[in-house]
Amino acid sequence: QINPDRLHQRIADLAAVGAIDGGGCARLALTDADRAGRDLVCGSMRELGLAVSVDAIGNVVGVRAGRSDGPPVMTGSHIDTVRTGGRYDGNYGVLAGLEVVAALNDAGLTTEHPLAVAFFTNEEGARFAPDMMGSLVYTGALPLAEALAVQGIDGATVGDELARIGYAGPAPVPAAAPRAFVELHVEQGPVLDREGIDIGVVESVQGISWTEIDIRGTSNHAGTTPMSMRRDAGWAAGEIIAFVRELATELGGDQVATVGRIEFFPNLVNVVPNRAVLTVDLRNTDEALLQRAEARLAAHLAALRDAEKVEISTRKLARFAPVPFAPEMTDRIEGHARALGLTTRRMPSGAGHDAQMLAAVCPTAMIFVPSVDGISHNVREYTEPKHIEAGAQVLLAVLSELAGA
Amino acid sequence: QINPDRLHQRIADLAAVGAIDGGGCARLALTDADRAGRDLVCGSMRELGLAVSVDAIGNVVGVRAGRSDGPPVMTGSHIDTVRTGGRYDGNYGVLAGLEVVAALNDAGLTTEHPLAVAFFTNEEGARFAPDMMGSLVYTGALPLAEALAVQGIDGATVGDELARIGYAGPAPVPAAAPRAFVELHVEQGPVLDREGIDIGVVESVQGISWTEIDIRGTSNHAGTTPMSMRRDAGWAAGEIIAFVRELATELGGDQVATVGRIEFFPNLVNVVPNRAVLTVDLRNTDEALLQRAEARLAAHLAALRDAEKVEISTRKLARFAPVPFAPEMTDRIEGHARALGLTTRRMPSGAGHDAQMLAAVCPTAMIFVPSVDGISHNVREYTEPKHIEAGAQVLLAVLSELAGA
Ligand SMILES: NC(=O)NCCC(=O)O
Ligand SMILES: NC(=O)NCCC(=O)O
Repeated sequence: QINPDRLHQRIADLAAVGAIDGGGCARLALTDADRAGRDLVCGSMRELGLAVSVDAIGNVVGVRAGRSDGPPVMTGSHIDTVRTGGRYDGNYGVLAGLEVVAALNDAGLTTEHPLAVAFFTNEEGARFAPDMMGSLVYTGALPLAEALAVQGIDGATVGDELARIGYAGPAPVPAAAPRAFVELHVEQGPVLDREGIDIGVVESVQGISWTEIDIRGTSNHAGTTPMSMRRDAGWAAGEIIAFVRELATELGGDQVATVGRIEFFPNLVNVVPNRAVLTVDLRNTDEALLQRAEARLAAHLAALRDAEKVEISTRKLARFAPVPFAPEMTDRIEGHARALGLTTRRMPSGAGHDAQMLAAVCPTAMIFVPSVDGISHNVREYTEPKHIEAGAQVLLAVLSELAGA
Repeated sequence: QINPDRLHQRIADLAAVGAIDGGGCARLALTDADRAGRDLVCGSMRELGLAVSVDAIGNVVGVRAGRSDGPPVMTGSHIDTVRTGGRYDGNYGVLAGLEVVAALNDAGLTTEHPLAVAFFTNEEGARFAPDMMGSLVYTGALPLAEALAVQGIDGATVGDELARIGYAGPAPVPAAAPRAFVELHVEQGPVLDREGIDIGVVESVQGISWTEIDIRGTSNHAGTTPMSMRRDAGWAAGEIIAFVRELATELGGDQVATVGRIEFFPNLVNVVPNRAVLTVDLRNTDEALLQRAEARLAAHLAALRDAEKVEISTRKLARFAPVPFAPEMTDRIEGHARALGLTTRRMPSGAGHDAQMLAAVCPTAMIFVPSVDGISHNVREYTEPKHIEAGAQVLLAVLSELAGA
């Protein structure tokens, strides 16, 4: 049995680190606030008797010994947030994992296999791309050196920032695969809340394509330069924003498309911008449709280049094909949720998660709980206490079975 | 006779202050670089024997005594620049004014009326809006207290920054009107260069409308939020950028429209922006057409507000009707230019200038020289030495006559 009060308290304690107006958190990866959050969670891990290790990309794994050695059954998520983050995204999965450990400790139970709770570095990808960086390196899908060299939106590199906050650990990556991986997370979308369902059984994660577009034009005077003589990098950026929305609307279905980040240079009222940098986030549950969206965007950029005589270069910040989870794991989650009297729904995940990287190396699945109004990456992100508790109960049941309690 | 080498040297010396790659300058108003530029020019004024005064908005006026007292004949411009500014915009008019004084000194001539060379604070408006701030306060069109309270793009206020750089002077504003005002400036547009004409006789300045648009939506997750559930402030901003270009194209004629500045919040790849702030610069030589463009923009914002369920507020950063110059002044400029064997063309100014504020209080006109390829607010801004010299010769002739040499 989990202890709801203890879990809620841990969530509140972590939310107090990097707290921002409205109840949310700003703990961008590898900032001082992230360090403070890490220190707090590492402290809890040690109090719970876990053997804590930090690897070279800053992933933290706390292991509870089993009767036998060998790879652990693992749960976990991330504790970094976006700049306007909520208190549940990522944090909930990690802290519910600790609550499972605490519940097993309370019951004096030793599992057959070791049980591990992990939090992975820079899952959000908001400061450093790609997202899910820590789990990518953990599973060998991204070379460590490449990850360490990534430069963030503020110019700092992952390697320097890891060293600065004291989380460039000695444990090697890639690491040995866990026996299985289960990630508990808030849905972040509107489906469960709208349909009044307790538990989402996540069958897959949709494909993610992040592109940074760098446009070069000619700075010139806003008052004296005829429209026909402009090479306006800012206008080209605006045109791309408008196009990207049309693209999503036209492709329909699950297709989503977002321009979340933009910068103009020199960024002054009376100067035609000579440079604009913006990001496009495209997602689809269907890889073929996602590729079609990418191709449409590329064709549009080529046409724009010719029409405005601007130079356009692109850089892939992240690209992940849709990831299916293991049916034996989703079945298990569904079975335990129903046995607990909870309503369930099978669904894809709209957000990227560390679980999608772990899925490449071990049987993996995810448990979702409802997000009120589907709001996330917003300080108003909220999940009702009863759903927070229900998700943790399901996690306890699934992990107990997998680890052999 | 002006001394070309001395004039070119002064331009090079001032360009060295706040120099940036490519030959340009970054001396945003009231920054340390602006102070250094001011110190240099004030030093030159004193060396030339001018009586230098600084007023409460930081305008600097250097006066060369005449045989009689009374209001001076004034020339001048500004020495602040945009962040990617050229070395001629503004600076040229001030330094050519000093060259006129130096030439009169060389010739041992005393004019009937005093002769003044001025540089006005924050003409560019790039850091603090409105543009032409110093000349607006000088002529009484903007209350001093209001100007001092203006907050810049970096949050600092005009009053604090003036005090910080030591240019909050004791001379009162508004000041007594000069006898006449002549401003020499680079065209900054393509007309004279394309037509191979030496001197532009500026008959008017087009109307300027600057609006800051502040859009509030809801931050949300880029991957999990269906397109239909978004209140995307960033998309609304992009849509406005696209609309503004269409508006200019559709209205045709002289209409120009520019979005030069933008900011998203929280400005992260996977977060639907909850806020976007952008500026729209609209200009037209015809006040009625400019009002039509403004009305079209306002109607578009209203429609957008409804369609995306975003909140949109606007703030006028600057609004100036077109300003005609005094025919007796333009005739005089044209006459002197032709007498010097130069080709001339009458034309409006696409850029705003301090002269348009002085025009409200005394007979005023402007002299333009060609800008190669019409490039300005760009480090590549360039005017050929022969045109720099010709413009200064015309200025000498016009000022000599006005001041009674
Ligand atoms: N769970 C979550 O918000 N992940 C961030 C990566 C993304 O999906 O953009
Ligand atoms: N001359 C000049 O560039 N003035 C700046 C004000 C404006 O026209 O935007």
